[in-house]
Amino acid sequence: MMPIHPFEDSNGDTLHEECGVFGAIGAPDASTVTALGLHALQHRGQEAAGICSFDGAEFYSRRGLGHVAENFSTQEALAELPGTMAAGHVRYSTTGGSGLRNVQPLYAELAAGGFAVAHNGNFSNAQTLRDELVAKGAIFHSTSDTEVIIHLVATSRYPTTIDRLIDALRLVEGAYALIVLTPEGLIACRDPLGIRPLQMGKLGDSTVFASETVAFDVIGAEFVRQVQPGEIVRVDFDGNIDSLHPFGNRKARPCIFEHVYFSRPDSIFDGRSVYAARKAIGEQLAIESPVDADLVVPVPDSGVPAAIGYAQQSGVPFELGIIRSHYVGRTFIQPSDSARHSGVKRKHNANRHLVEGKRIVLIDDSIVRGTTSLKIVEMMREAGAKEVHFRVASPPTAHSCFYGVDTPERSKLLAARMEIEPMREFIKADSLAFVSIDGLYRAVGGATRDGKCPQFCDACFTGDYPTSLTDLEKRTSQEAQLSFPVHKVA
Amino acid sequence: MMPIHPFEDSNGDTLHEECGVFGAIGAPDASTVTALGLHALQHRGQEAAGICSFDGAEFYSRRGLGHVAENFSTQEALAELPGTMAAGHVRYSTTGGSGLRNVQPLYAELAAGGFAVAHNGNFSNAQTLRDELVAKGAIFHSTSDTEVIIHLVATSRYPTTIDRLIDALRLVEGAYALIVLTPEGLIACRDPLGIRPLQMGKLGDSTVFASETVAFDVIGAEFVRQVQPGEIVRVDFDGNIDSLHPFGNRKARPCIFEHVYFSRPDSIFDGRSVYAARKAIGEQLAIESPVDADLVVPVPDSGVPAAIGYAQQSGVPFELGIIRSHYVGRTFIQPSDSARHSGVKRKHNANRHLVEGKRIVLIDDSIVRGTTSLKIVEMMREAGAKEVHFRVASPPTAHSCFYGVDTPERSKLLAARMEIEPMREFIKADSLAFVSIDGLYRAVGGATRDGKCPQFCDACFTGDYPTSLTDLEKRTSQEAQLSFPVHKVA
Amino acid sequence: MMPIHPFEDSNGDTLHEECGVFGAIGAPDASTVTALGLHALQHRGQEAAGICSFDGAEFYSRRGLGHVAENFSTQEALAELPGTMAAGHVRYSTTGGSGLRNVQPLYAELAAGGFAVAHNGNFSNAQTLRDELVAKGAIFHSTSDTEVIIHLVATSRYPTTIDRLIDALRLVEGAYALIVLTPEGLIACRDPLGIRPLQMGKLGDSTVFASETVAFDVIGAEFVRQVQPGEIVRVDFDGNIDSLHPFGNRKARPCIFEHVYFSRPDSIFDGRSVYAARKAIGEQLAIESPVDADLVVPVPDSGVPAAIGYAQQSGVPFELGIIRSHYVGRTFIQPSDSARHSGVKRKHNANRHLVEGKRIVLIDDSIVRGTTSLKIVEMMREAGAKEVHFRVASPPTAHSCFYGVDTPERSKLLAARMEIEPMREFIKADSLAFVSIDGLYRAVGGATRDGKCPQFCDACFTGDYPTSLTDLEKRTSQEAQLSFPVHKVA
Amino acid sequence: MMPIHPFEDSNGDTLHEECGVFGAIGAPDASTVTALGLHALQHRGQEAAGICSFDGAEFYSRRGLGHVAENFSTQEALAELPGTMAAGHVRYSTTGGSGLRNVQPLYAELAAGGFAVAHNGNFSNAQTLRDELVAKGAIFHSTSDTEVIIHLVATSRYPTTIDRLIDALRLVEGAYALIVLTPEGLIACRDPLGIRPLQMGKLGDSTVFASETVAFDVIGAEFVRQVQPGEIVRVDFDGNIDSLHPFGNRKARPCIFEHVYFSRPDSIFDGRSVYAARKAIGEQLAIESPVDADLVVPVPDSGVPAAIGYAQQSGVPFELGIIRSHYVGRTFIQPSDSARHSGVKRKHNANRHLVEGKRIVLIDDSIVRGTTSLKIVEMMREAGAKEVHFRVASPPTAHSCFYGVDTPERSKLLAARMEIEPMREFIKADSLAFVSIDGLYRAVGGATRDGKCPQFCDACFTGDYPTSLTDLEKRTSQEAQLSFPVHKVA
Repeated sequence: MMPIHPFEDSNGDTLHEECGVFGAIGAPDASTVTALGLHALQHRGQEAAGICSFDGAEFYSRRGLGHVAENFSTQEALAELPGTMAAGHVRYSTTGGSGLRNVQPLYAELAAGGFAVAHNGNFSNAQTLRDELVAKGAIFHSTSDTEVIIHLVATSRYPTTIDRLIDALRLVEGAYALIVLTPEGLIACRDPLGIRPLQMGKLGDSTVFASETVAFDVIGAEFVRQVQPGEIVRVDFDGNIDSLHPFGNRKARPCIFEHVYFSRPDSIFDGRSVYAARKAIGEQLAIESPVDADLVVPVPDSGVPAAIGYAQQSGVPFELGIIRSHYVGRTFIQPSDSARHSGVKRKHNANRHLVEGKRIVLIDDSIVRGTTSLKIVEMMREAGAKEVHFRVASPPTAHSCFYGVDTPERSKLLAARMEIEPMREFIKADSLAFVSIDGLYRAVGGATRDGKCPQFCDACFTGDYPTSLTDLEKRTSQEAQLSFPVHKVA
Repeated sequence: MMPIHPFEDSNGDTLHEECGVFGAIGAPDASTVTALGLHALQHRGQEAAGICSFDGAEFYSRRGLGHVAENFSTQEALAELPGTMAAGHVRYSTTGGSGLRNVQPLYAELAAGGFAVAHNGNFSNAQTLRDELVAKGAIFHSTSDTEVIIHLVATSRYPTTIDRLIDALRLVEGAYALIVLTPEGLIACRDPLGIRPLQMGKLGDSTVFASETVAFDVIGAEFVRQVQPGEIVRVDFDGNIDSLHPFGNRKARPCIFEHVYFSRPDSIFDGRSVYAARKAIGEQLAIESPVDADLVVPVPDSGVPAAIGYAQQSGVPFELGIIRSHYVGRTFIQPSDSARHSGVKRKHNANRHLVEGKRIVLIDDSIVRGTTSLKIVEMMREAGAKEVHFRVASPPTAHSCFYGVDTPERSKLLAARMEIEPMREFIKADSLAFVSIDGLYRAVGGATRDGKCPQFCDACFTGDYPTSLTDLEKRTSQEAQLSFPVHKVA
Repeated sequence: MMPIHPFEDSNGDTLHEECGVFGAIGAPDASTVTALGLHALQHRGQEAAGICSFDGAEFYSRRGLGHVAENFSTQEALAELPGTMAAGHVRYSTTGGSGLRNVQPLYAELAAGGFAVAHNGNFSNAQTLRDELVAKGAIFHSTSDTEVIIHLVATSRYPTTIDRLIDALRLVEGAYALIVLTPEGLIACRDPLGIRPLQMGKLGDSTVFASETVAFDVIGAEFVRQVQPGEIVRVDFDGNIDSLHPFGNRKARPCIFEHVYFSRPDSIFDGRSVYAARKAIGEQLAIESPVDADLVVPVPDSGVPAAIGYAQQSGVPFELGIIRSHYVGRTFIQPSDSARHSGVKRKHNANRHLVEGKRIVLIDDSIVRGTTSLKIVEMMREAGAKEVHFRVASPPTAHSCFYGVDTPERSKLLAARMEIEPMREFIKADSLAFVSIDGLYRAVGGATRDGKCPQFCDACFTGDYPTSLTDLEKRTSQEAQLSFPVHKVA
Repeated sequence: MMPIHPFEDSNGDTLHEECGVFGAIGAPDASTVTALGLHALQHRGQEAAGICSFDGAEFYSRRGLGHVAENFSTQEALAELPGTMAAGHVRYSTTGGSGLRNVQPLYAELAAGGFAVAHNGNFSNAQTLRDELVAKGAIFHSTSDTEVIIHLVATSRYPTTIDRLIDALRLVEGAYALIVLTPEGLIACRDPLGIRPLQMGKLGDSTVFASETVAFDVIGAEFVRQVQPGEIVRVDFDGNIDSLHPFGNRKARPCIFEHVYFSRPDSIFDGRSVYAARKAIGEQLAIESPVDADLVVPVPDSGVPAAIGYAQQSGVPFELGIIRSHYVGRTFIQPSDSARHSGVKRKHNANRHLVEGKRIVLIDDSIVRGTTSLKIVEMMREAGAKEVHFRVASPPTAHSCFYGVDTPERSKLLAARMEIEPMREFIKADSLAFVSIDGLYRAVGGATRDGKCPQFCDACFTGDYPTSLTDLEKRTSQEAQLSFPVHKVA
């Protein structure tokens, strides 16, 4: 009757950054600045957005499912968020009935006053802490790991909010970039290893924080510096900035995947242009795995910078052999298997006239489940490509992330299931190569990987997790993913 | 330009019951039964409605602003609420941004499992308890006094849920009828004085509870008995019913206003037909305050039964001198002063042809601010009535309620501001009389008021509050109403 | 699983007036006045509402499904309808996909300028005219019979709009009350027999028209007179009022059912108070069909005035033996047969305590299909009534209406299928009586029915249709109802 | 207070194709195929979408504002559109209250049966024809020029629908690609000069039509051929395809701007790959206007293929110096002037690290008003570019389009107001060059422009309009744009 449905979902064959955060203090129109900043971070989370503001007397909050522009595009929406301090959050969330109550910033009224928090990252002992808190009578209202922080602050024995927050952060493990609003001012925190990014900027007299520097460009702010791993930056309403380092000095391990995929190419991450890093990965890939071909074709849009690098290094011309539709956006209905191909074509279509009869090198940023790669290769062949060589601008992704990135369970990762030659067979390419881990390190940081103390968190490639994983260890007999018992209460 | 607005708000010149509750256990379609029961209780709260259900494994909840029919009229809505146990709530709430999170049933996941509660009434020490709980680290997520119960249960030292609940109820003062859902079954509780009503019924093998018996009629259930003041009824999934009386025996003080206005005339309250009680009040009023007139005219619809009683007792014919529109419903925009009259006419219109040249007795259930009474009298005069005598089927309402009824602050109550003759002048009637307090008691209960130990809570008429009012006493320098510091966080 | 659904539809067991119209010219806020006027006519059509206005230069229109208050309650909605002239319409429509495009006022831009029309009534040769117009190339955009008028005006050979309109009205047969807006002013028309009502009033310097006088009460206007049968009233922007009688003089035949059911009791129809007429019908019924009983119980709300009349005439006390919920409103889902009873109880509930053990006389305005009457009788018996006597304040309804009233097809009308004794058996009453046709005429007009030239249209009782029924005659082999071929195009 | 608004509108500084059309006949799920096809044409119109289907007995229609995915993404939406024949339309419309009634396909019920039409293009004598039709009594229900066709068909003297359609098309002048649905089958028409594109494909046994071939790729259909200029293709339900050429043979003048901007790069237009044509324009531009520079930077995304061509021809490296956000989409609020810059940055952000200190060649497809070009140049300079050379892949756009492209009025076109050197000053570039008209012709078609009989419609560059412009000529004293007297009736 209706064999295919026109707008099926994508098949989840990418890694998703779970969040982006933004904060502003000292800005006459803090929520407007925050909405613009969040919009620039939209690629880090498209399922929900929220802003919390403080006007010196009261806290205001507005959160909604969908994009920033859907929730914060009207004067009315922003007028409900007055004040000179604001925090914002974009979220990539798993869908389901629980929806809105997990949208951040989370807010609670503590004995000392209001407390709002926006969090990018994940606590790897959140369930353990939650169980302990509930046993003592704490009542949770979301299934978000972030709420653990609020209860730890609420029940801390310390008198001041800053000490309560530090007390709470000592108890959590994992990765975080936090923007906290209190009646005294804004607090920005980054985990001791700096796994998740957090940047600091200046907009006139106001201080702003964001997951990525591109947010500063869009609002016209000046990039000042990264928040340091383990640093807690406190800014009050007089503009005084205070820096605390309560967790001692440890070598940073920022997430290397920010360079590979998450960050926008026009951001600066860990002191290096993301665009330049990606081009360098492509160049490295061309050196490590050259191929005799007619065209270098990026899988748009994430593969474009690496493809330019590959093309410039190899001399093979860069061409748009795949055209991406700008109108895919959110989709609503689960696909039938038979409709998968149509789904891929809705998003990516072969530039048939160009690729017909050609030997092409496809450049993509990573391979997750491999199903998209297979479809892309098939699409190239159907369009008449003579040879299809697949080059990947990251090493094989063989391990799950527990630090705030939405990865499939390990058994679904293609690289966890097979070696490179079977992978090549699976995606039906003529050849397949990944950049080496040392090649990647060289491209993004200049030096090869320090095996004893790596310069990045690269656990998704190496399985070398830089923190303990308490919840996972307690539940090895269960699925190896952090999940809360979701009672279906809206 | 646009001098009047067609759909202005009513002027709030009535008392509002704040809630109705319903519960069912052992019913194969508990949420459907609950939706029908709530619909029959719609007059007790029209601003929001919610249902929580339990299917033996998980809790489900759906809450929304608006009428029951707006939220629970589709198969889809009810299919999201599976299980054989459900609790429901309708709410008259003050409007404002805080909205949805105060809609009941409230739900929390405690260490012992899920806990849902629907509450009709008000705790007169809620703020005091809340302050104590927050100081210990409790995080509240609504501004509802009901949430206090959940935190008291969560932090109780007793091991079982029933003991924790009794522990919590010992700490609260005020009025309540509660429906609680736990994984072990349903618990129905009524405050020690029985201020708020709670009825128990039987629908096949299932046990049902409701604020009023009319809910049983509508679902086809049998009325069993009232839940006793101070009684805790526990029903498990095998249909075992257990009755606890943990608070000792005290003489009941049910709210006499249930007879005057709140309950539907087809309900049985405190063992007496509400319709019969209202007719008896009208008869009493005719005996106490007769008047030589041509017509008895009820202010529709609440004044109708008393008017029938007045007419039958006095022999003056009962006639519909005022026609009520069925299409007023909720309105959205604040009126300009000049539009007030149009607003009254949209709801009530004089049956001019009937009243012209006549001496009429208007019967209304009560006078709150007096502004509506004034407009009704003026409307009768404009329609040509020769004399307008106002008779009120309750004593002067001179005191605020702290037990779950939304009364204006005391200074706005006409009877708190002036004696009867000035009130008559204010509403411009030819004569004005209220039923006497003893007349009211006789009509609804057969005996006059026992001054030492009154048979009802009649604090709104007498100022004789049957419980302590801790929050009020702590804040006499502030406004004499229970209110929480409303942080505008959605 | 879910045997009953809580909010099933009513079973369509009433007659529905299909429309109400309102017009205003010379009012500074014409659309606001029109919205208020339509609200007072809401009982004549609850499915859709529309207003069209003219500001001297342009026409504006807003139409929507649902109640007047849902569509015209905001300043924004009314601000979109500027100007000193407006026409409004409320509609009871059969549901279905075609929806919005049939909502009136209809508007078209003719060669002479804009032309808006709101119509209460029905043309009994609409399909025949439509077929002729389409054959000539006319393109219809609704399935409403009203659009025929617009095409007839557009294609008339006369030069002026008023002559074109008269030309068009000469071609139609049936019943109509029309409000027409043109750039020259407002035109109000009533069909030559005056079957459908149309009243004229004065609000300050502005002239207003409405289906019922209650609309004038609500807006504070003064009732001037009825528009005469066959009269065309033209009002220009200087306030000049012109009356045309282009169709000659014929004896009026206003719809007698306006007195029985359609009009609000506080309206004046055909020179007589509707409330007084209904009471008189009840008195007549008590004289014609007395019964030894304990209580007179109205089926609320339409049976109340007749019940008061019956009670006063008979001396049997009037009591509210059935309580009506105010929260039924529109419902959304078709009922399963098993849920019919619950549906009746949601709307009407027995006042059990009152009727138990009593002999009751039920008074209803009419019997259509008989299914509701059966349920009401059964409800009384279940509540313990000893005897149930049914008295109907109109003669048996045995014929369909083709003049704008939504009647079931004839075969569904109980009185078309059986005599009175079988009807009594069907509804399970102890006795059943209808008011006689002469008794009805006496009650509403003072004289018995003039068989040669009846004073009213009473075709639904007598089958004596006062106009020809061209469409029906052309399609006697088809169903005997006017219907357009509904192409499902939104 | 709130000096800038975060989501202001773009400034309209592009040309917009007004429509895309799609049709399918003989497909078991015609509306699903049509939804997918329209989605692939989404870039041709993002404001509204509609589909009309026919199931052999009835016509069905669904139209909505917004994207295809917003209106046709659910099984429910498509289930309302059954049948094996469907037509679809996407529209770029000017906003305003008239909205939905102008959304296509338009549908009318004619004497011969249903008639649906979807139109890409514009009739340059629509107002003249409309005036004539209204004078004869035709009633228009939209302000769309397309409705003229329906009235011309309805009033034609010919007996068959196909002859009536040809009769109607003889009366119109201008540009059109039409998909017409009738009970006999589908008719696809292209204007005699082939100004607007229309392609024909095959999907299994069904025949499909689309504005661009990319729609065939996405649904998995095979491209068969272009519909010829002046050709009328008729397909019946047995799959018979008939071709009529009722307008004689004239040399084709397809719109050259399809190659420059409108069509997707993966489409084939007029027998040539659009991607290849754009690259060739870039190469031509590099030959005509070389510059000594460090980077070739496209204005994304439309400038990318030309930039690749420019880079390959010149040897200057292609780099992403501007990063485009994928989340701009529709915006809702008019910008304040001060916020313009933020708006540009939300959409386009400089890749500062890359362009700093560099001499860059910016490649864009065209310059309309010039305001965007100015902002892009300024953004490059703020990011540190040493020199900014602007190269445009089309000649100066100096004339309005009257064939279905939404151009600003002529006085707003930068190239209509000034020569090239003042334009360079206006956009603040170091140098500015456009491709020559002969260079453009060579790139897209292989030969230079034939001045006597040009191979393309290039009126926007040359002012050489290939048809008469009746409406424009009749109103030279008025604004030189086709517009209907918009009565604000929704």
